[in-house]
Amino acid sequence: MKQTLRHQRTAAPVALTGKAATTLRPLPLSAARVVDGFWAERQQVNRTAAIPAGLRQLRDSGALRNLRRAAGRGEGQYEGPVFIDSDVYKWLEAIAWEQAREPSQALAADQAKITALVAEAQQPDGYLNSFVQVATRGTARFADLTSGHELYCAGHLMQAAVAQYRATGYRELLDTAIRFADLLVATFGPGKRPELDGHPLVEMALVELYRETGDSRYLELARHFVESRGDGWAATGPDPRPRSYYSDRVPVRQAVTVEGHAVRALYLAAGAADLAAETGDEELLAALERQWHAMVTAKTYITGGVGARWEGEAFGDPYELPADRAYCETCAAIASVQWSWRMLLRTGDARYADLIERTLYNAVLPGISLDGNAYFYVNALQVRSGQADDDVRNPANGRVGWFGVACCPPNIMRTIASLGSLLATTADDGVQIHQYATSVITAEVASGTARLAVATDYPWDGRIEITVQAAPDEDWTLALRIPEWCADAKALVAGTGAAEACQPGTYLRLRQRWTAGDSVVLDLPMPVRQTEAHKRVDAVRGCVAIERGPLVYCLEQADHPAGVLIDDIQLVDGDCTPVWRPDLLSGITAVQMTGRTTPGAMPLYQPRTADDGQPGRLARLTAIPYFAWANRGPAPMRVWIPLGPPG
Amino acid sequence: MKQTLRHQRTAAPVALTGKAATTLRPLPLSAARVVDGFWAERQQVNRTAAIPAGLRQLRDSGALRNLRRAAGRGEGQYEGPVFIDSDVYKWLEAIAWEQAREPSQALAADQAKITALVAEAQQPDGYLNSFVQVATRGTARFADLTSGHELYCAGHLMQAAVAQYRATGYRELLDTAIRFADLLVATFGPGKRPELDGHPLVEMALVELYRETGDSRYLELARHFVESRGDGWAATGPDPRPRSYYSDRVPVRQAVTVEGHAVRALYLAAGAADLAAETGDEELLAALERQWHAMVTAKTYITGGVGARWEGEAFGDPYELPADRAYCETCAAIASVQWSWRMLLRTGDARYADLIERTLYNAVLPGISLDGNAYFYVNALQVRSGQADDDVRNPANGRVGWFGVACCPPNIMRTIASLGSLLATTADDGVQIHQYATSVITAEVASGTARLAVATDYPWDGRIEITVQAAPDEDWTLALRIPEWCADAKALVAGTGAAEACQPGTYLRLRQRWTAGDSVVLDLPMPVRQTEAHKRVDAVRGCVAIERGPLVYCLEQADHPAGVLIDDIQLVDGDCTPVWRPDLLSGITAVQMTGRTTPGAMPLYQPRTADDGQPGRLARLTAIPYFAWANRGPAPMRVWIPLGPPG
Repeated sequence: MKQTLRHQRTAAPVALTGKAATTLRPLPLSAARVVDGFWAERQQVNRTAAIPAGLRQLRDSGALRNLRRAAGRGEGQYEGPVFIDSDVYKWLEAIAWEQAREPSQALAADQAKITALVAEAQQPDGYLNSFVQVATRGTARFADLTSGHELYCAGHLMQAAVAQYRATGYRELLDTAIRFADLLVATFGPGKRPELDGHPLVEMALVELYRETGDSRYLELARHFVESRGDGWAATGPDPRPRSYYSDRVPVRQAVTVEGHAVRALYLAAGAADLAAETGDEELLAALERQWHAMVTAKTYITGGVGARWEGEAFGDPYELPADRAYCETCAAIASVQWSWRMLLRTGDARYADLIERTLYNAVLPGISLDGNAYFYVNALQVRSGQADDDVRNPANGRVGWFGVACCPPNIMRTIASLGSLLATTADDGVQIHQYATSVITAEVASGTARLAVATDYPWDGRIEITVQAAPDEDWTLALRIPEWCADAKALVAGTGAAEACQPGTYLRLRQRWTAGDSVVLDLPMPVRQTEAHKRVDAVRGCVAIERGPLVYCLEQADHPAGVLIDDIQLVDGDCTPVWRPDLLSGITAVQMTGRTTPGAMPLYQPRTADDGQPGRLARLTAIPYFAWANRGPAPMRVWIPLGPPG
Repeated sequence: MKQTLRHQRTAAPVALTGKAATTLRPLPLSAARVVDGFWAERQQVNRTAAIPAGLRQLRDSGALRNLRRAAGRGEGQYEGPVFIDSDVYKWLEAIAWEQAREPSQALAADQAKITALVAEAQQPDGYLNSFVQVATRGTARFADLTSGHELYCAGHLMQAAVAQYRATGYRELLDTAIRFADLLVATFGPGKRPELDGHPLVEMALVELYRETGDSRYLELARHFVESRGDGWAATGPDPRPRSYYSDRVPVRQAVTVEGHAVRALYLAAGAADLAAETGDEELLAALERQWHAMVTAKTYITGGVGARWEGEAFGDPYELPADRAYCETCAAIASVQWSWRMLLRTGDARYADLIERTLYNAVLPGISLDGNAYFYVNALQVRSGQADDDVRNPANGRVGWFGVACCPPNIMRTIASLGSLLATTADDGVQIHQYATSVITAEVASGTARLAVATDYPWDGRIEITVQAAPDEDWTLALRIPEWCADAKALVAGTGAAEACQPGTYLRLRQRWTAGDSVVLDLPMPVRQTEAHKRVDAVRGCVAIERGPLVYCLEQADHPAGVLIDDIQLVDGDCTPVWRPDLLSGITAVQMTGRTTPGAMPLYQPRTADDGQPGRLARLTAIPYFAWANRGPAPMRVWIPLGPPG
């Protein structure tokens, strides 16, 4: 099946279209483009290092060989985990977004080859899963929905297919996905098989396929999958895990918090949010708002990371947020962004964009090395000296090139490649800018097309200049998110001379008849902040986290001599000074502080002492952005720093 | 095979005999007997409630039906986990210790019946494992040593058999065990099969069988199993767990700490200590001392509990000791006692007896309810309000009657039944008393038999009166452990009028020609103590634990009104007053304190504030001994209490 790759950009929205009861509308693919600065560099590394290395890993891990075997063209046993097909699909999705950003013949060739392989592996009735086709010779089709991940893989296929079609106009993967989706429609749902996949994801994908095709059967199947959750149809296998692990303990619209396996829970929540958006279901939306609120008020790390437990890769209890054993799977952070994005579209509430910002910088980005060649699966907020490293996911191993369970790396690839889609939205009254990056944004407002250029050194500097390059000849509102962390934001509309009042955690709404050449300078001061946690967060009692702008900082041993052990540091009250360090970690703003060492040789338990005895030696501390840690080998690290005695 | 149950007490030591290079010698069965007071009550409940209920659970869980099926007498499928036979053996061991404490026809009848069933289930060549015989029809014998627990079950059979023989003289179970042990000798070892059981235990049991039979082949097999650990012969199965989980990452004599699955690690350590004792291997002993030191200085909870992680039921990294997700499996505490006991015998070092005391009261005993009918598998040091309870092991469920994996309940039964064996030892120069209980102790010293009566209200009161009831007519030393927690111990030898100097964490050695009627009064003052943890224990920074005597205390919601939420309490400096409360929890000494409530409604993260704002309301706090918690239904609880701001 040969076909020319047409690099056609459809006007189809990225995530939502049609009957959507959304407040904000996403922009078409490539209508918001990062063109320079921090995220441009990350996207370039993603394109030139991560994605090509990813293709090699798909080869080495057996993922591509499995598909070849499924197509009847390869010998040998099935390789890897049952859901390894999804690695291929996520990688294909990343490629699609890259093709939208900047078409390339090399990317197109890889895309065409692997797309054809996927299509070739598909069975005549639309079924496609290399594990079932190869390892069970097709005998176990939909036989272990609890653990088999067949619908999960199908969902990733659909997401990749929609992205590829929107980016390139190339239909082959979309047709493959539609054939599989049609089989799912024929197999599952009321009056058919009642079981659910043990790992949600297909819900989001089916809604997206509905948006692209207009075929409401996909929306209906997504609705069935979302509404049946909690009836015990996902946890039907012999696996002894609790139903909460499969997001199947309680119906979505009755749930009051997030629980169980974090990635499963948040993919389901994002799918439910898609459903609520398409159906205008206010009750479902309210349930999701309640769950999101429960997550951010008691189950979210300061990094935006989620999932406190290794056991079951799960959310913990409220306020159970250990730094050392934080799981914070990279995929869970990505799922959190996806959920918040859908909630933002539906509600226009800045808190969702705030969490997206926090999570992108401090929970997604830490998952990939600065050179784009190594990953974290687990993003702990502390690594101790002498920490055991006998699990490849343990950050004590440092970053690694790939994983046996490699969900995270290609998930980061598709997320970084699609970052532009999170920058801005439109609504009837104007354009909303949610995330700040040097970028060009083209958006349709009621009366025509607005084109904006954004220039900034964000996240290192809070000055953001937005220049209108084109605008319709009517009033419209430029809405700028004032981050919740920013107490003294100021905005100056050029020409008017008037500074606008800025309320943190809201949108500054500037309404006027904009003309080309108009500009706004938004100033988001970034003093170093010391942040403390709720008193119920036992794990970090008596500690502060260092933040600056949208970035969470950490102490890493690499910046300190051996005599200043990160494990034995207390912060001394005094200046926290930001210092631009072009030499360090490809250029970062570090934070200089003063601390004291505390004696390490003490009994494990001892009578409470009235004071701390001799004060430790003073030590100069250097904090670096958390996302940049572990780029100099594995080392002790901590985000939360104990406070020394007052005075 | 009918045989009279002879209630004969052999003079064989409980744990060690023969060529043992020990410093201290254990007493014969029943030579040290708890006769009244705290532990007598616990033993009575164990005998009259726990053990009979245990037999019902062995019936209900299918454990006895499995053996009947293995004997060819029962229908139906195998039931329960692969190691369910070990529940039967541990229960039989408990019965044996009870028969030694106080023979009973009812116990004897149960014992005989189940012993005969076990013998009947054994195959002609000595093999015995109901899972393999029933579920695999014998085809999978020693086929999955990594996860199959066949040698683990064999070890529990041997331990029960030796206990039963020593207690009753009844040989049937011992002969069964010997037949199986002979099969193991023929199957495993140098030149034979090299694999190890994924779950250590058989090492201790083989040494014990060697001690009882004098057959050195058992000692040699134990040596092989101990010395081969670390070569990867345990973790040969398809199970993806790390080698440390199976105590198979590093050779025992090279290990510098404890790691991996806590129960596995400590059963192996105890077996290695047995081996070191029998062989006089100083290098192995030194390795074990190093590992024990690493455990108590960085990996032990204040309760003596061990195992910081649910994931893999494992030891965490040094200082990783979260209160909320503490695993502290009851079995791990029991294994810790077994290891420390062997180290104590070998070295005579009081620190081992100190840890045994701490662990018995605060990590083993919390595993069983006051009425003896319900258990904890996991002994967390904190339960939050609203904690999810979807795992039966989660203490948020409260105590439960039995578990699908029921290792802990019969393990507690055998431990409480055998408590007398931990009270005292002899050595050439006299008698050592390690644990204080109202008891009668008969011990051989060099020149004859000494008989001591101990009277005390320990652990509620620190006055201990030891009366000599009989003694040989020569000088010998009465050694009394001065607990490490006791700063102001005093001992008064009646008649001499002189108080002896007492150094905490050592033995007070009183050498004289004792005559019947002589007495010593040891006074161990028990002020309430506030204990803090090493600064690296992030999980309890800024907190204290309340202790009194050997007991660790906790706050339980049941003792506080709803407006004084345990989650939101800070301790205010001031008096901590012990109060005897006969009405509470069968009679306990509670501790009264003053605290303040802190506001629960705060953001999860906020800028550090210079002070804590408005002080909370003063609240009267009541702490209870940790072992007694959760006897009034599940409720929030915490051992570590945050300190309020000073002043």
